Formats: sequence, C-alpha cells, structure tokens
Amino acid sequence: MELKEILAHCDHTLLRQDCTAEEIRELCDQAIRYGCASVCIPPAHVAGAKKYVGGKMKICTVIGFPNGYSTPAVKAFEAADAIRHGADEVDMVVNLGMIKDAAWGDVLGDIRAVREASQGKILKVIIETCLLTQEEKVQMCALVSAAGADYIKTSTGFSSGGATFDDVALLRRCCDARVLVKAAGGISTLEDAERFLELGADRLGTSRIVKLAMAEEKCREANGAEDASALEAAEEVTEPLD
Amino acid sequence: MELKEILAHCDHTLLRQDCTAEEIRELCDQAIRYGCASVCIPPAHVAGAKKYVGGKMKICTVIGFPNGYSTPAVKAFEAADAIRHGADEVDMVVNLGMIKDAAWGDVLGDIRAVREASQGKILKVIIETCLLTQEEKVQMCALVSAAGADYIKTSTGFSSGGATFDDVALLRRCCDARVLVKAAGGISTLEDAERFLELGADRLGTSRIVKLAMAEEKCREANGAEDASALEAAEEVTEPLD
Repeated sequence: MELKEILAHCDHTLLRQDCTAEEIRELCDQAIRYGCASVCIPPAHVAGAKKYVGGKMKICTVIGFPNGYSTPAVKAFEAADAIRHGADEVDMVVNLGMIKDAAWGDVLGDIRAVREASQGKILKVIIETCLLTQEEKVQMCALVSAAGADYIKTSTGFSSGGATFDDVALLRRCCDARVLVKAAGGISTLEDAERFLELGADRLGTSRIVKLAMAEEKCREANGAEDASALEAAEEVTEPLD
Repeated sequence: MELKEILAHCDHTLLRQDCTAEEIRELCDQAIRYGCASVCIPPAHVAGAKKYVGGKMKICTVIGFPNGYSTPAVKAFEAADAIRHGADEVDMVVNLGMIKDAAWGDVLGDIRAVREASQGKILKVIIETCLLTQEEKVQMCALVSAAGADYIKTSTGFSSGGATFDDVALLRRCCDARVLVKAAGGISTLEDAERFLELGADRLGTSRIVKLAMAEEKCREANGAEDASALEAAEEVTEPLD
C-alpha cells in the first residue's frame, strides 16, 4: 500500500490535555500537506482550527472524552456546540458504567442523543475495547449499528490499551456493513497501519503516520541511504498512546 | 489527629470510567457510615446517588473532567445539568491549553462560566498541578481566587501526578484566605492525609482513607494485636491515583 493511501485514512490527532493553539495550527498544516482525512482535536480548539484551515481540512473533535460518563444531555449539547463551532466529525465515548450495568437501553439512548445532535455530520462511537469483555464488544457492535452511527472506534488512547488486530477484525465482522471502523490508540508503524486497513479499518486515529511521512521525506531530501536512520528513529517514537 | 476528623475532610471518591451503579451505592454507604464530607462521583451517576442517599450525604461531581478542554459553554451546561440532577458540589478542570497559551482572560472566563452556572453550590477548580510550572501555579491561585471559586484543587488523579506537600503549601499561601484547598490524587496513608491537612488543605479527594478506616475497624473487631496485618495491607494498596 502506498504511504499516500495510508495517510488519506488518517485522522491526524492531538488530544493532549495542554496542547496549545500553535501546536494545533502545526497539526493542521501537516494534515493538509500530507492529505489526511481530518485533524482530531479538543473541542476548545475547534473554532480556532476551523478558521485557520479555511475549508482545506475536515475538523474532527471528541465528545464526553475520554471517560464517557457525562450525561446524555451534556454529550448532546457538546456535540451541537462543536458543530456550531465548525466540527465536521464528532467522536463520542460511550458510557462504560452503563455497559457494565448491562443497561443496554440507556447505552443506546446515550448514543442516540448524540446522533440526533449531529445529524448530517459524521459520528464515530468510541467503545474503549480495552475495558470490555468479548461479549460486551459484540453487543456494542449491535447497538452502535442500531443507533445509526457512521463509525465504531476502538479506543480513546487514554485508557489501558489501544487498537488490536483482533478487535478491529471483530468490529468489522459484527457491525452493519454500513458502519465503518476506526482503529485508534498506539498505532505506530506503517506495517501496523496497513494491517489495520487490510482488516477492515477505514480510518486510523494517530499522529505517528504523519511523523513517519515527514521523516521519510527528510530521508529522501538527504538523498537516500546515508540518512535512513531518521526513518528508523521515527519508528521508535514511544510517546503515550495517540 | 483523630481518624474521625480526617474522614470528615474526605470527599470519598470513585471516578473510574466503568464504575457501576452498585459500586456507587457502596461508596455512598461507606461515606455515610464514616462521616465523609461528600461522595465524588461521575456526572452520569449523580441523579441515582442523590436519590439513594436521600439527603444523608453531599453529592460532588466533576465537570470537563479530566482533560479540561471542553468549551466554557459546555462546562457551564454540564455544571447546571449536574446541579439539576442533585449535585451539591462541582469540581471543574481548568483549560490547560489556555494556560500554556498564557491566554489568562480566557482562563478566567472559562472558570467564571462555571461559577455563574453553579451559584449557591460549592465550586472547586482543579488546576492539574503536575502539568504546570511553578509560575503557572501561582498565576492560577490569583485567577481562581478572582473568579470567586470556593476551592482550588490540585489534581484530577488521571494525569502524571497527584497532590504534593509543596503544592498544597503553595496553593494555601497564594490564594485568597477565603479560598479553600483540596488535595487530591494518590493520597494513600493516614500520615500523608494528616500532613496535607496541617499544610492547609481543607478537603482530601481519595477513597483510601475510608478503606483504611474499614481495615482498622476490622482489626479492632478481631480484638487487636493478632490482626494488625489488615491495616498494614490496606496501607500498601497501590491502585492508580484516586
């Protein structure tokens, strides 16, 4: 798979608690330059980023993030607020306590509240696979499909684990064909990115792939062989899950 | 200091992403039994807990938690929603990106939005000390005081560090005398709890002190010496920061 094709599936992501407006602008510049699907950024940065990109990049943000235990009314308000400020896509976190309580009607209602508030925009539903049993993951595929979401997404990147190959294959198998899959959290090599796409992911939430593309470009500029170390160094980045 | 006195300063806390309604009810029972100041729980559990305690315990919840980067409008809506569902106290997280951008007017506006939405209730402002420089902490003492908050609070327990003795002493020294200090994150022994109170903290956010009280009670029931190990074991609990 061409690097360019992988990049086109990336939501170039920066969700650190203390990221600055300047960092968000750099992220936008990179996403435009490398042809990413969107930038995925904190709600408070949406208005500024929308103005900055001037229609040249989709803006994705997060709702009830990362713990998922805001009330449905608050999640719906937050989604509407984000869209009003320019968000094209919203990635909400499900209520994990409701899942553990097997309160399936409440889980569905929580997702539907955000679906209603985000009509016409892309809604991704983060189920935080690392905290779920196999059965709970399968149940969530049914509910996310039934709620009319556009995507099911593996992880926030703020819990104990990120996307796994097994989970992505499971989500692809158990959701409606209409529902797309986003793999997120800890995706750090081109090989892994390609494998996630082959297993049925349509989007990847990560900042690493763009970093690898930047390193490869630098490599090529330095005219090949003697600077292959830049790419290798980039592959070894060990930041927290993103 | 008597254990009972320490317990009276504790916000008995459970903020795990996937905590269940049953766990929240147990938390409420414990807080009532041991005379805590409040239970500190996720927003989605406020209505259930309020109904369950029937006025026998204060309900505290969290706003824009733990990352702090919801918009001011969303934080204000979330605070009003929580209070409508029965919250007596709200612990909001500041916008750390605004702090790093030195956008002090925006930082103040963010806190004020929640202050206006929470009139008559206790507002605590979490500044996440582990992500701030010494100067930023001092600046936040001024802004939290100016915004009319009731408390300044050290930590969410979801970042890289919790309360420290130095930070609690600093916050006590740099805030208006009217503003109280809440130490939270990683408080795990009675000695530490007592030291935080001596340094000027008025509240402690933790679940460990109640666990220690329960272990001590068990110890006494077993009639002293031969079961002192229960208390020692409880002191060694090494859960994530709470």
